[in-house]
Amino acid sequence: MPDLALTPDDPVRLVDQAGRRARVAQRQLARASAEARSAALTAAADAIDRASAGILAANARDMATAGTLTEALRERLFLDPGRVAAIARGVREIAAQDDPVGRIDERWTRPNGLDFARVRVPLGVIGVIYESRPNVTADAGALCLRAGNAAILRGGSESFHSSAALLACLRQGLAAAGLPEDAVQALGTTDRAAVGALLAAHEHLDLVVPRGGKGLIERVQREARVPVLAHLDGNCHVYVDRAANPDVARRVVVNAKMRRVSVCGAAETLLVDRAAPAGLLAMLVDDLIQAGCAVRGDADVRAVDARVTPADDTDWATEYLDRVIAARVVDGVDEAIAHVERWGSRHTDAIITEDAAAADRFLAELDSAILLLNASTQYADGGEFGFGAEVGIATGRLHARGPVGARHLTTWKYVVRGTGQVRP
Amino acid sequence: MPDLALTPDDPVRLVDQAGRRARVAQRQLARASAEARSAALTAAADAIDRASAGILAANARDMATAGTLTEALRERLFLDPGRVAAIARGVREIAAQDDPVGRIDERWTRPNGLDFARVRVPLGVIGVIYESRPNVTADAGALCLRAGNAAILRGGSESFHSSAALLACLRQGLAAAGLPEDAVQALGTTDRAAVGALLAAHEHLDLVVPRGGKGLIERVQREARVPVLAHLDGNCHVYVDRAANPDVARRVVVNAKMRRVSVCGAAETLLVDRAAPAGLLAMLVDDLIQAGCAVRGDADVRAVDARVTPADDTDWATEYLDRVIAARVVDGVDEAIAHVERWGSRHTDAIITEDAAAADRFLAELDSAILLLNASTQYADGGEFGFGAEVGIATGRLHARGPVGARHLTTWKYVVRGTGQVRP
Repeated sequence: MPDLALTPDDPVRLVDQAGRRARVAQRQLARASAEARSAALTAAADAIDRASAGILAANARDMATAGTLTEALRERLFLDPGRVAAIARGVREIAAQDDPVGRIDERWTRPNGLDFARVRVPLGVIGVIYESRPNVTADAGALCLRAGNAAILRGGSESFHSSAALLACLRQGLAAAGLPEDAVQALGTTDRAAVGALLAAHEHLDLVVPRGGKGLIERVQREARVPVLAHLDGNCHVYVDRAANPDVARRVVVNAKMRRVSVCGAAETLLVDRAAPAGLLAMLVDDLIQAGCAVRGDADVRAVDARVTPADDTDWATEYLDRVIAARVVDGVDEAIAHVERWGSRHTDAIITEDAAAADRFLAELDSAILLLNASTQYADGGEFGFGAEVGIATGRLHARGPVGARHLTTWKYVVRGTGQVRP
Repeated sequence: MPDLALTPDDPVRLVDQAGRRARVAQRQLARASAEARSAALTAAADAIDRASAGILAANARDMATAGTLTEALRERLFLDPGRVAAIARGVREIAAQDDPVGRIDERWTRPNGLDFARVRVPLGVIGVIYESRPNVTADAGALCLRAGNAAILRGGSESFHSSAALLACLRQGLAAAGLPEDAVQALGTTDRAAVGALLAAHEHLDLVVPRGGKGLIERVQREARVPVLAHLDGNCHVYVDRAANPDVARRVVVNAKMRRVSVCGAAETLLVDRAAPAGLLAMLVDDLIQAGCAVRGDADVRAVDARVTPADDTDWATEYLDRVIAARVVDGVDEAIAHVERWGSRHTDAIITEDAAAADRFLAELDSAILLLNASTQYADGGEFGFGAEVGIATGRLHARGPVGARHLTTWKYVVRGTGQVRP
């Protein structure tokens, strides 16, 4: 029941208005052709390229008031001409993706002649809540549109002007293709209460996708009255088995940790089989240290390199997202599996081995969203999976796990064709 | 934080204990072979057959204290030898179903040589909350086990003894197959607070499936802090188009309404095209009345048969689950679609037509979980879809829609096999 004391920009009322417009727009978008959705996204990418100077000016306004942010957050907020061009390129790639709407996943006929088809349909209206990263406005908005969904975006307040400039381009693209602009909206307020209003709007939103750090995810999981597709960070492991190819192990371990330390697929713990080839553990530790990574290890790891500092249970549980790794010696694949089950976050874990039996056990018995054999955990990425862009890596168990691309922002309906069948 | 004043059967503590045991058992169950899960279910069915007399005695105890229940609820609670045999047969059919665990849904290779597989895995620990229907104990428990899930069951308190007797058979089946009995548990209390404790147990449950009437579903949607796969009832429509085959229309309309009036796939509103063949509306109304159905109609429907009583907006919104139908004349497929969008519950809706264009519009533009052409809405059933038994018909948008069988009580993981690939 609306509060009688509502002010014009009351967050609940803003969400209510946006939600009603989104529902109408979403129906039109879902009924439009795949070509129309592609045309809208291509036109949006063109608009971003054309509006580059304006987007940069908006970003400069945001940066001017972002002095209190950490350097990492300022870095994520900052745009330059190259970054704007990359955003436009990202939207153009989404425009070129297969459109999932209407795809028939399965089709079968029953003995009574009824013909069943399971058909992909948009999820509906999706709320996206994210931090001050202007590129997410374009990425997440475009992915929602690709799958026929309307999006209500709520980015961090520090990126308000940059996000608004990018949103305007998405809406121009929709209009250029004859599609309703309201298929993508922002709440138009920096009021933090707007996040709470979105999370409560179960009559308007079919899904909320939070994209950000632990604080945001925890707030969403605590407050949400709408379904959530949660994109948690990852405490990822690499296990180097006794049957590892040492060259593969060295290449993969350094890449999994150091290629980019701030991504959710970065390795955080190295597990090495006590029976691994002689000297391999020492080489892995040295490789990491040479690459600029601090190593924290148990007594067995410290015994091979004096530069290793002690690790304790806190380290096994920590997602550093930094140039630090925890390392431990384990007694074979069983203890490796037990360690990952005990401490992991079921995001992405890898085994390095040439032994098919050890690989099969690791890949079968663990239940992470992504399990890899002889490859880097940094492949945890929608693009690398061939899904195109993603809104994140889902680690929940419902609806979708792993990289969430446009195809995962859909649901299905059953279409059943008969010739007069009635049920006995 | 646990309350210090906990009593031994405090619901939160009961859920906590059951949840911990379920998690351990679920891992064993998931790692067991499909054959072992089948053997457990077959042994459970055998146990139900053997224990028939004991189950009937338990049911007699429940019936003796169920005097305050409505006749419909007493009917659902009551067991006789034939019903017990049917329950055993149902479990045996689930034992014979394909096991979804480990099934590879998709497999592909990327240009860098990485081999991707999307593999079905159990959802985990599933809470099932239902009313006093002893058969659900066996059905829902068996479906969870089929897909490698542990189940924590909470049936209505009036079926306490019957459900306990059936649960014992499921657990005997698990033990006979060398699988952990705790993969299926009941809370062992009739305390209504136990439902609240289950709905809050997000650290123990991966999913809650409520199975029951509107009151239960609404409580679950209000209180749940765990993901819910909701099985709502259905306000289902049959639209008879101008291009309908009159014989098909008459056969389907009567079957959709009257085959069983209490199921969620029963038709509740009949929409007839103003341009339908002369006399068809009158025949449909007469067929329904002859079959024992009361018809409530708009002025156009009342004009063809004096026995039709007036319908208003309340009727369009009502799921009667009774020998009553609402009927309305509409101006073609557009108005039919608009009516279903306005009043329907997105469960199951049917069009009767020989016109491919009208059919395509109805099937494409509506977004119900199940849309049928020239067939009865009473086909909204997992068995009729070929899924085997079901825990219900999902009308939410996340994870699964339509009939929810064992295959839908799973999620997936990605298994990625490489030869030393690292990410550039």
